[in-house]
Amino acid sequence: MSKSTGSKSLFGPDSTYLDYNATTPVDDRVLDAMLPYLQGNFANPSSVHRFGRVARAGLDRAREQVAALVDVSPSQVIFTSGGTEANNLALWSVLSGSTPGHLMVSSIEHACVLEPSARWEAQGWRRDLMPVNTQGRLQLDAAIRLLSDDTRLVSLMLANNETGVIQPVAELAAEARQRGALMHTDAVQAAGKWPLRFADTGAHLMTLSAHKIYGPKGVGALIVDKSVEIDPMLIGGGQERNYRSGTENLPGIVGFGMAAELAASGLDERQQKLRALRDTLEGALKAMPQVTIFGAQAERLPNTVQFALQGIDGEALLMQLDRDGIGVSSGSACASGKTAPSHVLMAMGVDEFTARGAIRVSLGKDTTKADIDRLIESLRRQLAWVEQAAGAAAW
Amino acid sequence: MSKSTGSKSLFGPDSTYLDYNATTPVDDRVLDAMLPYLQGNFANPSSVHRFGRVARAGLDRAREQVAALVDVSPSQVIFTSGGTEANNLALWSVLSGSTPGHLMVSSIEHACVLEPSARWEAQGWRRDLMPVNTQGRLQLDAAIRLLSDDTRLVSLMLANNETGVIQPVAELAAEARQRGALMHTDAVQAAGKWPLRFADTGAHLMTLSAHKIYGPKGVGALIVDKSVEIDPMLIGGGQERNYRSGTENLPGIVGFGMAAELAASGLDERQQKLRALRDTLEGALKAMPQVTIFGAQAERLPNTVQFALQGIDGEALLMQLDRDGIGVSSGSACASGKTAPSHVLMAMGVDEFTARGAIRVSLGKDTTKADIDRLIESLRRQLAWVEQAAGAAAW
Repeated sequence: MSKSTGSKSLFGPDSTYLDYNATTPVDDRVLDAMLPYLQGNFANPSSVHRFGRVARAGLDRAREQVAALVDVSPSQVIFTSGGTEANNLALWSVLSGSTPGHLMVSSIEHACVLEPSARWEAQGWRRDLMPVNTQGRLQLDAAIRLLSDDTRLVSLMLANNETGVIQPVAELAAEARQRGALMHTDAVQAAGKWPLRFADTGAHLMTLSAHKIYGPKGVGALIVDKSVEIDPMLIGGGQERNYRSGTENLPGIVGFGMAAELAASGLDERQQKLRALRDTLEGALKAMPQVTIFGAQAERLPNTVQFALQGIDGEALLMQLDRDGIGVSSGSACASGKTAPSHVLMAMGVDEFTARGAIRVSLGKDTTKADIDRLIESLRRQLAWVEQAAGAAAW
Repeated sequence: MSKSTGSKSLFGPDSTYLDYNATTPVDDRVLDAMLPYLQGNFANPSSVHRFGRVARAGLDRAREQVAALVDVSPSQVIFTSGGTEANNLALWSVLSGSTPGHLMVSSIEHACVLEPSARWEAQGWRRDLMPVNTQGRLQLDAAIRLLSDDTRLVSLMLANNETGVIQPVAELAAEARQRGALMHTDAVQAAGKWPLRFADTGAHLMTLSAHKIYGPKGVGALIVDKSVEIDPMLIGGGQERNYRSGTENLPGIVGFGMAAELAASGLDERQQKLRALRDTLEGALKAMPQVTIFGAQAERLPNTVQFALQGIDGEALLMQLDRDGIGVSSGSACASGKTAPSHVLMAMGVDEFTARGAIRVSLGKDTTKADIDRLIESLRRQLAWVEQAAGAAAW
């Protein structure tokens, strides 16, 4: 029997959450898995007494579950406090203590890859930002040409958090490996929404996050190829075989394990359901005047639509949708409050005016046809209002 | 109505957990505070829509609660993934980007202070390990003599995790400030067990952890003096006013807030209860042959006893107690599995043979007289057995 309070109950039936790329509610089964580790099985997994051993068993099981999601050995999973720490660690682990050389990250990476790469650049590393095309997909040839004999690390996300566009990670990884570079991929948005085997990506390092797959916030993982030596960022007690010190966030990790297990099954059905809902939304959007759907021609996550309605400011539209009880994003959640237009859209060559109109809609497991209909209806009302206002101004 | 499963239910009435310095169970009231943020109020606090604003309100309230525990402004609280990250960040934030100079840490700090300090030493910083006396208390005069005009950071914990000995942080901070150095204190073990006002410690930086005060694992905080500029370690999305990026672990932070609120009240009563139980234990210990209670002459946390029974190996005794259903530690939880004797006891000048006998007993809010009696009885049985074995060997 689930102790769940219901993922929507607190917002009422008139609320529509369409921001699953920002974060997801914890699945009932995930919460049920976590609860015993918050109280009864609360011990420190590093303690050797019986209490600690029960905790350790929970940790081990979660490690197996996360490993199974991407088909690696449990020993290849380093638990972190989330995707940001895992991405920071990926760059740290490769570059720390090395003679500065060359590193490459795509221009559409999340800030928690871009900012560390800039920090290493400030430490004397040469950094190239790999370009994307107008559809938001990596320009593979251009990226390959940037590879150099002293390239140590190449980082390319599997799926972009704003557009949902799938990136050619395996293709770039093959080239990077030939040049002796390590490959990192941020798979935070792909997990649970796209087929994901570590070996298939060709990456040496892969970032995962629990709270994007109906697990809890505050936990993620870096998946590490057996050939790679990790230099830890957080040091002290020697947890995670010295790769990441700090008392393990056991309830969070156990929740991550269950979320990974759930994400590993039923992918086809989830994709099908999400794609159908997304297609309904995009069909309606395409009937609206002067709409731009970013990355529409590219292979995308089935749950994500980023679009702009020409002449309507994204932040203003977001606020208006919010008044209608609909939660969407103008880009990544972290970027909210920032006034600059999306760096992803800028990298795609979108003009700033259009980029400022961007709205990201991301669907999830609880999304219904009614949610999509409400969004479409609300968008149509805004458009009618804007047209009326424009007409009044012209008159 | 609490959803608690009961902190002891899974181990049964014959189990006695006496390792509260390693970690604590989540208080029922803490869990009840967390649950809504795992499901209904699950949004990303950085999202600007209504869902995000509800999440943000929870984050703000928790920040106020943690700030109130140590009597600072909410803006002085930087949430981290735990004590280890906060301690790592304290050293990082002061030393990163600086011309190498001098830093001082006590010889009895937790590994998550000692190891980063060694890393900075490897980067060219001069590092002094401040000595303690035979009671495990800082040698204040010796420490003051180590201060130099280029001392940038001094780190001294408030209460030691193994012995429980209270350290003269305020006295050292006054001297450090006179020399222009910044003072950091790891208050992880003191919080909830000892009076704790940030201003009274004289520190510029203070580390807290939730799971030592009946809050969840995976969350902690660095308290920062308003005069100090922080250089962030984890970078990306710009959360925590850019001082610590990564989607906030909202359920964990909300739990930390409630745990802090609970820790802030009833301290005298808790101390009195714990001290009475501890005195009962120590009275019985003192009646045993050749017992050493470490730091017995020093001011100590009321819940902590570290002792050794001459001739009995600590790890073996720990295992024997475990067979009797009693969970204690041979030192810090993180150090388990390590074969070296406690660095804390070594710094106190304890001989290695005695140090290898060390057992740490740490009491908590659910500890009863019956728990203490069981421990005493079990210890007496071990002693009788050892005496018998020794007699048999002599015979």
